[in-house]
Amino acid sequence: MRIIGVDPGSTATGYGVVDYADGRVVHVAHGILRPPRTASLAARLAHIHGGLAEIVALHAPDTAVVEKVFVASNPRSALVLGQARGVALAALAAAGLTVGELAAREVKKAVVGHGGAAKAQVQTMVMRLLDLRTEPASDAADALAVAICQAHAGRLAGLDVRGRRRRSVRARHEGEWTRMRT
Amino acid sequence: MRIIGVDPGSTATGYGVVDYADGRVVHVAHGILRPPRTASLAARLAHIHGGLAEIVALHAPDTAVVEKVFVASNPRSALVLGQARGVALAALAAAGLTVGELAAREVKKAVVGHGGAAKAQVQTMVMRLLDLRTEPASDAADALAVAICQAHAGRLAGLDVRGRRRRSVRARHEGEWTRMRT
Repeated sequence: MRIIGVDPGSTATGYGVVDYADGRVVHVAHGILRPPRTASLAARLAHIHGGLAEIVALHAPDTAVVEKVFVASNPRSALVLGQARGVALAALAAAGLTVGELAAREVKKAVVGHGGAAKAQVQTMVMRLLDLRTEPASDAADALAVAICQAHAGRLAGLDVRGRRRRSVRARHEGEWTRMRT
Repeated sequence: MRIIGVDPGSTATGYGVVDYADGRVVHVAHGILRPPRTASLAARLAHIHGGLAEIVALHAPDTAVVEKVFVASNPRSALVLGQARGVALAALAAAGLTVGELAAREVKKAVVGHGGAAKAQVQTMVMRLLDLRTEPASDAADALAVAICQAHAGRLAGLDVRGRRRRSVRARHEGEWTRMRT
């Protein structure tokens, strides 16, 4: 089963793709979508939507997962987060994926061991768990963490692996996805 | 100049299309996108995105406008509004449109005469201004109102009409856009 985790944000949207099979989680790809700062709000949101659509087309995940949002600090930041989160969810659903939601505390607990872990701890643990050579940037590490957690949550919940055939050789990709779309 | 106004919302997203030429605003189309209630959040957002993309392709507006959001009542409702607003903005920008923003008070003042107008007053005035046979539903009326206001704001600001050729016969369309996409 291939899982894409997404950490939506208006300036940086992290994504991480992992495979889960035979009790093991294997890294496939991760990166960050950074809409051009000088573009309009609408153009930046279109950049996130189009970028995720291309990433999903490239890596063909079976399912998607994002962090659940509880209470944001204030209405203004909730609106800004909501705008980025909305386009991320829409892009994933438009590609035919179901989108799960996991609480941040749950994700940190699964990956680091306790729900109050700092961002740096998540980065370090994600690097170790996935046997990466370098620490992923924070937004991508959060996205990988939620994907790893979903992999294990799926196993615990006895979820079936959907019957998509896996490629025998799989491209590995680390980096930032910065192509300008709009 | 053809203008699309959009009033984004998670359960109902209103849209209204008007033409502005020679100091007159003429109705072209309006309607409401209602994502299926039983669908997941992500699927409902994808429905709004895809629906607006089709509406823009159908009516080929020159520019778009949405209501500016000031402070929402609380972070939870700001997040929900933000998600719908984000996909609406992304869909409009992905179609190559610039997206203007107008304050609700400004819109009500232009259409009804005072900034604190009730929804029913906006519906009535939009019907009269556009010479419609029936009152548009509230979400569509708000979308038409913001488009009307943008038409006059553009004239006052001396904006150029972009050089897209107008069709001589123009389809008029009133109704709800409810086709299921996802």
